[in-house]
Amino acid sequence: MRGILIGIAVAAISAAISATPAGAIDYAKSGDIIPPANYRDWVFLTSSLDLNYNEPVPGAAAPAKSQLDNVFVNPEAYKVYMKTGTWPDKTVMVKENRVAAPSADEIGKSGKVQEGIISIELHVKDKKRYPGDGWAFFFSNGKTPTARYVARPASCYTCHEEHGKVDTTFVQFYPTLVDVAKAHKTFKGD
Amino acid sequence: MRGILIGIAVAAISAAISATPAGAIDYAKSGDIIPPANYRDWVFLTSSLDLNYNEPVPGAAAPAKSQLDNVFVNPEAYKVYMKTGTWPDKTVMVKENRVAAPSADEIGKSGKVQEGIISIELHVKDKKRYPGDGWAFFFSNGKTPTARYVARPASCYTCHEEHGKVDTTFVQFYPTLVDVAKAHKTFKGD
Repeated sequence: MRGILIGIAVAAISAAISATPAGAIDYAKSGDIIPPANYRDWVFLTSSLDLNYNEPVPGAAAPAKSQLDNVFVNPEAYKVYMKTGTWPDKTVMVKENRVAAPSADEIGKSGKVQEGIISIELHVKDKKRYPGDGWAFFFSNGKTPTARYVARPASCYTCHEEHGKVDTTFVQFYPTLVDVAKAHKTFKGD
Repeated sequence: MRGILIGIAVAAISAAISATPAGAIDYAKSGDIIPPANYRDWVFLTSSLDLNYNEPVPGAAAPAKSQLDNVFVNPEAYKVYMKTGTWPDKTVMVKENRVAAPSADEIGKSGKVQEGIISIELHVKDKKRYPGDGWAFFFSNGKTPTARYVARPASCYTCHEEHGKVDTTFVQFYPTLVDVAKAHKTFKGD
Protein backbone atom coordinates (compact mmCIF):
# COMPACT_ATOMS: atom_id res chain seq x y z
CA MET A 1 0.00 0.00 0.00
CA ARG A 2 2.78 2.38 0.94
CA GLY A 3 4.58 1.56 -2.31
CA ILE A 4 1.45 2.28 -4.30
CA LEU A 5 1.01 5.63 -2.54
CA ILE A 6 4.60 6.59 -3.22
CA GLY A 7 4.20 5.51 -6.83
CA ILE A 8 1.12 7.66 -7.26
CA ALA A 9 2.82 10.65 -5.63
CA VAL A 10 5.94 10.27 -7.78
CA ALA A 11 3.87 9.83 -10.93
CA ALA A 12 1.77 12.88 -10.04
CA ILE A 13 4.77 15.07 -9.43
CA SER A 14 6.57 13.79 -12.54
CA ALA A 15 3.53 14.64 -14.62
CA ALA A 16 3.13 18.01 -12.92
CA ILE A 17 6.55 19.42 -13.61
CA SER A 18 8.18 20.15 -16.93
CA ALA A 19 11.79 20.18 -18.13
CA THR A 20 13.69 23.42 -17.52
CA PRO A 21 17.08 24.31 -19.03
CA ALA A 22 19.85 24.55 -16.43
CA GLY A 23 20.05 28.02 -14.92
CA ALA A 24 16.80 29.23 -16.47
CA ILE A 25 13.64 30.11 -14.58
CA ASP A 26 10.52 28.90 -16.32
CA TYR A 27 7.60 31.27 -15.77
CA ALA A 28 4.07 30.68 -16.95
CA LYS A 29 2.23 33.54 -18.69
CA SER A 30 0.09 33.95 -15.58
CA GLY A 31 3.15 34.97 -13.53
CA ASP A 32 3.18 31.60 -11.81
CA ILE A 33 6.27 29.41 -12.09
CA ILE A 34 6.91 25.94 -13.52
CA PRO A 35 8.94 24.09 -10.86
CA PRO A 36 12.25 22.78 -12.26
CA ALA A 37 11.95 19.08 -13.15
CA ASN A 38 15.44 18.28 -11.94
CA TYR A 39 15.54 20.00 -8.56
CA ARG A 40 16.23 16.68 -6.80
CA ASP A 41 19.60 16.70 -8.59
CA TRP A 42 20.37 20.19 -7.20
CA VAL A 43 22.40 20.89 -4.08
CA PHE A 44 20.68 19.76 -0.90
CA LEU A 45 20.71 22.27 1.97
CA THR A 46 18.71 20.85 4.87
CA SER A 47 15.83 18.79 6.10
CA SER A 48 13.42 19.76 8.87
CA LEU A 49 10.50 18.26 10.73
CA ASP A 50 7.23 20.18 10.83
CA LEU A 51 8.82 23.52 10.07
CA ASN A 52 5.78 25.51 9.06
CA TYR A 53 4.73 29.10 9.33
CA ASN A 54 2.63 29.88 12.36
CA GLU A 55 0.17 31.36 9.94
CA PRO A 56 -0.35 29.15 6.89
CA VAL A 57 0.66 30.38 3.45
CA PRO A 58 -2.50 31.69 1.75
CA GLY A 59 -4.12 28.88 -0.19
CA ALA A 60 -2.12 26.16 1.55
CA ALA A 61 -4.07 23.61 3.51
CA ALA A 62 -2.78 22.92 7.01
CA PRO A 63 -0.84 19.67 6.82
CA ALA A 64 -2.91 16.78 8.14
CA LYS A 65 0.19 14.71 8.90
CA SER A 66 3.63 15.32 10.27
CA GLN A 67 5.98 16.41 7.48
CA LEU A 68 9.69 16.12 6.71
CA ASP A 69 10.92 18.70 4.22
CA ASN A 70 13.98 18.90 1.95
CA VAL A 71 15.46 22.18 0.70
CA PHE A 72 17.44 22.32 -2.56
CA VAL A 73 19.14 25.21 -4.38
CA ASN A 74 20.31 25.48 -7.99
CA PRO A 75 24.03 24.62 -8.30
CA GLU A 76 24.92 27.92 -10.01
CA ALA A 77 23.60 29.92 -7.02
CA TYR A 78 25.26 27.53 -4.54
CA LYS A 79 28.67 28.07 -6.15
CA VAL A 80 28.30 31.85 -5.85
CA TYR A 81 27.11 31.54 -2.24
CA MET A 82 30.15 29.47 -1.27
CA LYS A 83 32.41 32.23 -2.62
CA THR A 84 30.47 35.27 -1.39
CA GLY A 85 28.26 34.21 1.54
CA THR A 86 25.13 35.46 -0.16
CA TRP A 87 22.72 34.56 -2.95
CA PRO A 88 23.08 35.90 -6.51
CA ASP A 89 20.29 36.95 -8.85
CA LYS A 90 18.47 33.93 -10.35
CA THR A 91 18.73 31.90 -7.15
CA VAL A 92 15.98 29.29 -6.96
CA MET A 93 15.30 27.42 -3.72
CA VAL A 94 12.85 24.54 -3.65
CA LYS A 95 11.38 23.30 -0.36
CA GLU A 96 9.54 20.04 -0.90
CA ASN A 97 7.33 18.99 1.97
CA ARG A 98 6.87 15.23 2.24
CA VAL A 99 4.71 13.01 4.40
CA ALA A 100 6.66 11.87 7.46
CA ALA A 101 5.39 8.31 7.72
CA PRO A 102 6.01 5.89 10.59
CA SER A 103 8.96 3.69 9.66
CA ALA A 104 8.40 0.03 8.98
CA ASP A 105 8.44 -2.32 11.94
CA GLU A 106 11.71 -3.86 10.83
CA ILE A 107 13.80 -0.80 11.59
CA GLY A 108 13.62 2.03 14.13
CA LYS A 109 10.13 1.54 15.47
CA SER A 110 9.94 5.13 16.65
CA GLY A 111 11.36 6.63 13.46
CA LYS A 112 9.76 8.50 10.58
CA VAL A 113 10.61 8.20 6.89
CA GLN A 114 9.79 10.35 3.86
CA GLU A 115 6.95 9.41 1.52
CA GLY A 116 4.87 11.37 -1.00
CA ILE A 117 4.85 15.10 -1.67
CA ILE A 118 2.49 17.26 0.41
CA SER A 119 3.45 20.55 -1.23
CA ILE A 120 6.31 22.43 -2.89
CA GLU A 121 7.37 25.97 -2.03
CA LEU A 122 9.80 28.01 -4.14
CA HIS A 123 11.80 31.07 -3.17
CA VAL A 124 13.16 32.83 -6.25
CA LYS A 125 15.44 35.84 -6.61
CA ASP A 126 14.82 37.67 -9.87
CA LYS A 127 15.61 41.37 -9.59
CA LYS A 128 14.27 42.39 -12.98
CA ARG A 129 10.92 40.87 -12.21
CA TYR A 130 10.39 41.64 -8.53
CA PRO A 131 11.04 45.10 -7.13
CA GLY A 132 12.69 45.67 -3.76
CA ASP A 133 14.92 42.79 -2.66
CA GLY A 134 14.15 40.75 -5.78
CA TRP A 135 12.69 37.74 -3.97
CA ALA A 136 9.33 36.09 -4.65
CA PHE A 137 7.54 33.04 -3.24
CA PHE A 138 5.55 30.39 -5.10
CA PHE A 139 3.41 27.56 -3.80
CA SER A 140 2.29 24.26 -5.33
CA ASN A 141 0.31 21.34 -3.98
CA GLY A 142 2.56 19.10 -6.11
CA LYS A 143 -0.31 18.10 -8.37
CA THR A 144 -0.58 21.13 -10.67
CA PRO A 145 1.92 21.92 -13.48
CA THR A 146 2.64 25.36 -12.05
CA ALA A 147 3.34 26.82 -8.63
CA ARG A 148 1.22 29.84 -7.77
CA TYR A 149 2.87 33.24 -7.30
CA VAL A 150 2.31 34.51 -3.76
CA ALA A 151 1.69 38.27 -3.90
CA ARG A 152 2.76 40.66 -1.15
CA PRO A 153 1.78 41.13 1.60
CA ALA A 154 1.97 37.53 2.83
CA SER A 155 3.38 35.93 5.95
CA CYS A 156 6.19 34.16 4.06
CA TYR A 157 7.68 37.54 3.06
CA THR A 158 7.39 39.16 6.48
CA CYS A 159 8.68 36.08 8.33
CA HIS A 160 11.68 35.65 6.00
CA GLU A 161 12.49 39.39 6.11
CA GLU A 162 12.28 39.46 9.89
CA HIS A 163 14.00 36.16 10.76
CA GLY A 164 16.04 35.00 7.75
CA LYS A 165 19.73 35.39 8.59
CA VAL A 166 21.13 35.85 5.06
CA ASP A 167 19.33 37.96 2.45
CA THR A 168 15.90 36.92 3.82
CA THR A 169 16.76 33.19 3.67
CA PHE A 170 16.94 30.81 6.63
CA VAL A 171 20.65 30.04 6.37
CA GLN A 172 20.62 29.49 10.15
CA PHE A 173 18.93 26.15 9.37
CA TYR A 174 21.47 25.16 6.66
CA PRO A 175 24.24 23.82 8.90
CA THR A 176 27.02 23.68 6.30
CA LEU A 177 26.35 27.24 5.07
CA VAL A 178 26.37 29.15 8.37
CA ASP A 179 30.15 29.50 8.67
CA VAL A 180 30.44 30.67 5.05
CA ALA A 181 28.09 33.59 5.77
CA LYS A 182 29.85 34.40 9.04
CA ALA A 183 33.23 34.46 7.29
CA HIS A 184 31.81 36.90 4.72
CA LYS A 185 29.97 38.95 7.38
CA THR A 186 26.67 38.41 5.62
CA PHE A 187 25.02 36.67 8.60
CA LYS A 188 22.49 39.12 10.07
CA GLY A 189 23.10 40.24 13.63
CA ASP A 190 26.38 38.42 13.98
CA MET B 1 25.18 29.60 21.35
CA ARG B 2 23.58 27.46 18.68
CA GLY B 3 25.65 29.24 16.04
CA ILE B 4 28.81 28.51 17.99
CA LEU B 5 27.89 24.83 18.34
CA ILE B 6 27.20 24.56 14.62
CA GLY B 7 30.49 26.32 13.92
CA ILE B 8 32.41 23.87 16.08
CA ALA B 9 30.69 20.89 14.51
CA VAL B 10 31.33 22.14 10.97
CA ALA B 11 34.96 22.93 11.79
CA ALA B 12 35.41 19.50 13.36
CA ILE B 13 33.97 17.68 10.39
CA SER B 14 35.90 19.83 7.91
CA ALA B 15 39.13 18.99 9.72
CA ALA B 16 38.19 15.32 9.96
CA ILE B 17 37.65 14.63 6.29
CA SER B 18 40.12 14.87 3.43
CA ALA B 19 39.74 15.63 -0.26
CA THR B 20 38.92 12.63 -2.46
CA PRO B 21 39.07 12.59 -6.27
CA ALA B 22 35.63 12.18 -7.86
CA GLY B 23 34.70 8.54 -8.22
CA ALA B 24 37.60 7.23 -6.10
CA ILE B 25 37.25 5.52 -2.75
CA ASP B 26 39.91 6.63 -0.29
CA TYR B 27 40.89 3.79 2.07
CA ALA B 28 43.30 4.12 4.95
CA LYS B 29 46.00 1.44 5.36
CA SER B 30 44.09 0.09 8.35
CA GLY B 31 41.16 -0.89 6.11
CA ASP B 32 39.09 2.00 7.41
CA ILE B 33 37.83 4.63 4.99
CA ILE B 34 38.37 8.37 4.65
CA PRO B 35 34.90 9.86 4.16
CA PRO B 36 34.68 11.91 0.95
CA ALA B 37 35.06 15.62 1.69
CA ASN B 38 32.48 16.66 -0.88
CA TYR B 39 29.61 14.27 -0.11
CA ARG B 40 27.26 17.19 0.62
CA ASP B 41 27.54 18.05 -3.10
CA TRP B 42 26.47 14.51 -4.06
CA VAL B 43 22.92 13.43 -4.92
CA PHE B 44 20.55 13.60 -1.95
CA LEU B 45 18.30 10.55 -1.48
CA THR B 46 16.26 11.00 1.68
CA SER B 47 16.00 12.33 5.20
CA SER B 48 14.59 10.46 8.17
CA LEU B 49 13.86 11.09 11.83
CA ASP B 50 15.35 8.73 14.42
CA LEU B 51 15.86 5.89 11.97
CA ASN B 52 18.28 3.73 13.92
CA TYR B 53 18.94 0.06 14.19
CA ASN B 54 17.11 -1.65 17.01
CA GLU B 55 20.49 -2.93 18.07
CA PRO B 56 23.14 -0.19 17.92
CA VAL B 57 26.03 -0.45 15.47
CA PRO B 58 29.01 -1.83 17.44
CA GLY B 59 31.00 1.06 18.88
CA ALA B 60 28.26 3.61 18.24
CA ALA B 61 26.89 5.39 21.27
CA ALA B 62 23.11 5.48 21.51
CA PRO B 63 22.05 8.96 20.38
CA ALA B 64 21.31 11.18 23.35
CA LYS B 65 19.08 13.45 21.28
CA SER B 66 16.57 13.04 18.52
CA GLN B 67 18.32 12.91 15.15
CA LEU B 68 17.52 13.89 11.57
CA ASP B 69 19.66 12.11 8.97
CA ASN B 70 20.51 12.85 5.34
CA VAL B 71 21.52 10.17 2.84
CA PHE B 72 23.72 11.02 -0.17
CA VAL B 73 25.10 8.85 -3.01
CA ASN B 74 27.97 9.54 -5.41
CA PRO B 75 26.66 10.98 -8.71
CA GLU B 76 28.32 8.27 -10.85
CA ALA B 77 26.41 5.52 -9.01
CA TYR B 78 23.17 7.53 -9.10
CA LYS B 79 23.36 7.85 -12.88
CA VAL B 80 23.77 4.08 -13.25
CA TYR B 81 20.92 3.43 -10.79
CA MET B 82 18.55 5.66 -12.76
CA LYS B 83 19.26 3.60 -15.89
CA THR B 84 19.35 0.11 -14.34
CA GLY B 85 17.42 0.20 -11.05
CA THR B 86 20.39 -1.08 -9.07
CA TRP B 87 23.75 0.03 -7.73
CA PRO B 88 27.02 -0.44 -9.63
CA ASP B 89 30.40 -1.36 -8.18
CA LYS B 90 32.04 1.63 -6.41
CA THR B 91 28.75 2.93 -5.07
CA VAL B 92 29.29 5.03 -1.94
CA MET B 93 26.36 6.03 0.25
CA VAL B 94 26.85 8.45 3.12
CA LYS B 95 24.26 8.74 5.91
CA GLU B 96 25.02 11.73 8.08
CA ASN B 97 23.15 11.81 11.36
CA ARG B 98 22.55 15.31 12.69
CA VAL B 99 21.13 16.68 15.91
CA ALA B 100 17.42 17.39 15.49
CA ALA B 101 17.18 20.60 17.51
CA PRO B 102 13.99 22.40 18.50
CA SER B 103 13.31 25.13 15.96
CA ALA B 104 13.62 28.74 17.02
CA ASP B 105 10.59 30.39 18.56
CA GLU B 106 10.09 32.62 15.55
CA ILE B 107 9.01 29.78 13.23
CA GLY B 108 7.22 26.46 13.69
CA LYS B 109 7.28 26.18 17.47
CA SER B 110 6.82 22.42 17.31
CA GLY B 111 9.37 21.82 14.56
CA LYS B 112 12.88 20.43 14.57
CA VAL B 113 15.85 21.63 12.51
CA GLN B 114 19.24 20.11 11.68
CA GLU B 115 22.34 21.12 13.62
CA GLY B 116 25.74 19.46 14.14
CA ILE B 117 26.89 15.99 13.13
CA ILE B 118 26.25 13.12 15.56
CA SER B 119 27.82 10.42 13.38
CA ILE B 120 28.46 9.39 9.78
CA GLU B 121 27.75 5.93 8.37
CA LEU B 122 29.01 4.78 4.96
CA HIS B 123 27.75 1.89 2.83
CA VAL B 124 30.28 1.05 0.12
CA LYS B 125 30.13 -1.45 -2.74
CA ASP B 126 33.61 -2.61 -3.74
CA LYS B 127 33.57 -6.14 -5.17
CA LYS B 128 37.31 -6.59 -5.41
CA ARG B 129 37.74 -5.77 -1.75
CA TYR B 130 34.70 -7.38 -0.10
CA PRO B 131 33.67 -10.94 -0.91
CA GLY B 132 30.03 -11.97 -1.31
CA ASP B 133 27.75 -9.12 -2.31
CA GLY B 134 30.60 -6.58 -2.30
CA TRP B 135 29.09 -4.27 0.32
CA ALA B 136 30.81 -3.00 3.47
CA PHE B 137 29.81 -0.62 6.26
CA PHE B 138 31.90 2.06 7.96
CA PHE B 139 31.16 4.19 10.98
CA SER B 140 32.52 7.54 12.16
CA ASN B 141 31.66 9.81 15.07
CA GLY B 142 32.39 12.74 12.73
CA LYS B 143 35.43 13.79 14.73
CA THR B 144 38.07 11.32 13.50
CA PRO B 145 39.75 11.52 10.05
CA THR B 146 38.65 7.97 9.17
CA ALA B 147 35.47 5.95 9.45
CA ARG B 148 35.96 2.55 11.03
CA TYR B 149 35.35 -0.61 8.96
CA VAL B 150 32.55 -2.68 10.49
CA ALA B 151 33.45 -6.38 10.19
CA ARG B 152 30.87 -9.11 9.71
CA PRO B 153 28.86 -10.30 11.52
CA ALA B 154 27.15 -7.07 12.55
CA SER B 155 23.54 -5.98 12.74
CA CYS B 156 23.89 -3.47 9.90
CA TYR B 157 24.67 -6.31 7.45
CA THR B 158 21.91 -8.64 8.61
CA CYS B 159 19.30 -5.87 8.78
CA HIS B 160 20.16 -4.54 5.31
CA GLU B 161 20.26 -8.04 3.80
CA GLU B 162 16.92 -8.96 5.33
CA HIS B 163 14.99 -5.73 4.81
CA GLY B 164 16.75 -3.65 2.13
CA LYS B 165 14.58 -3.68 -1.00
CA VAL B 166 17.29 -3.15 -3.66
CA ASP B 167 20.66 -4.90 -3.43
CA THR B 168 20.62 -4.66 0.41
CA THR B 169 19.89 -0.92 0.36
CA PHE B 170 16.80 0.77 1.81
CA VAL B 171 15.46 2.11 -1.49
CA GLN B 172 11.96 1.82 0.03
CA PHE B 173 12.86 4.96 1.99
CA TYR B 174 14.16 6.87 -1.08
CA PRO B 175 10.86 8.08 -2.50
CA THR B 176 12.10 9.18 -5.92
CA LEU B 177 13.98 5.90 -6.52
CA VAL B 178 11.26 3.35 -5.76
CA ASP B 179 9.54 3.50 -9.15
CA VAL B 180 12.87 3.17 -10.98
CA ALA B 181 13.56 -0.13 -9.23
CA LYS B 182 10.01 -1.36 -9.80
CA ALA B 183 10.28 -0.57 -13.51
CA HIS B 184 13.51 -2.59 -13.67
CA LYS B 185 12.12 -5.39 -11.48
CA THR B 186 14.97 -4.97 -9.00
CA PHE B 187 12.66 -4.18 -6.07
CA LYS B 188 12.68 -7.20 -3.77
CA GLY B 189 9.37 -9.00 -3.27
CA ASP B 190 7.50 -6.84 -5.74
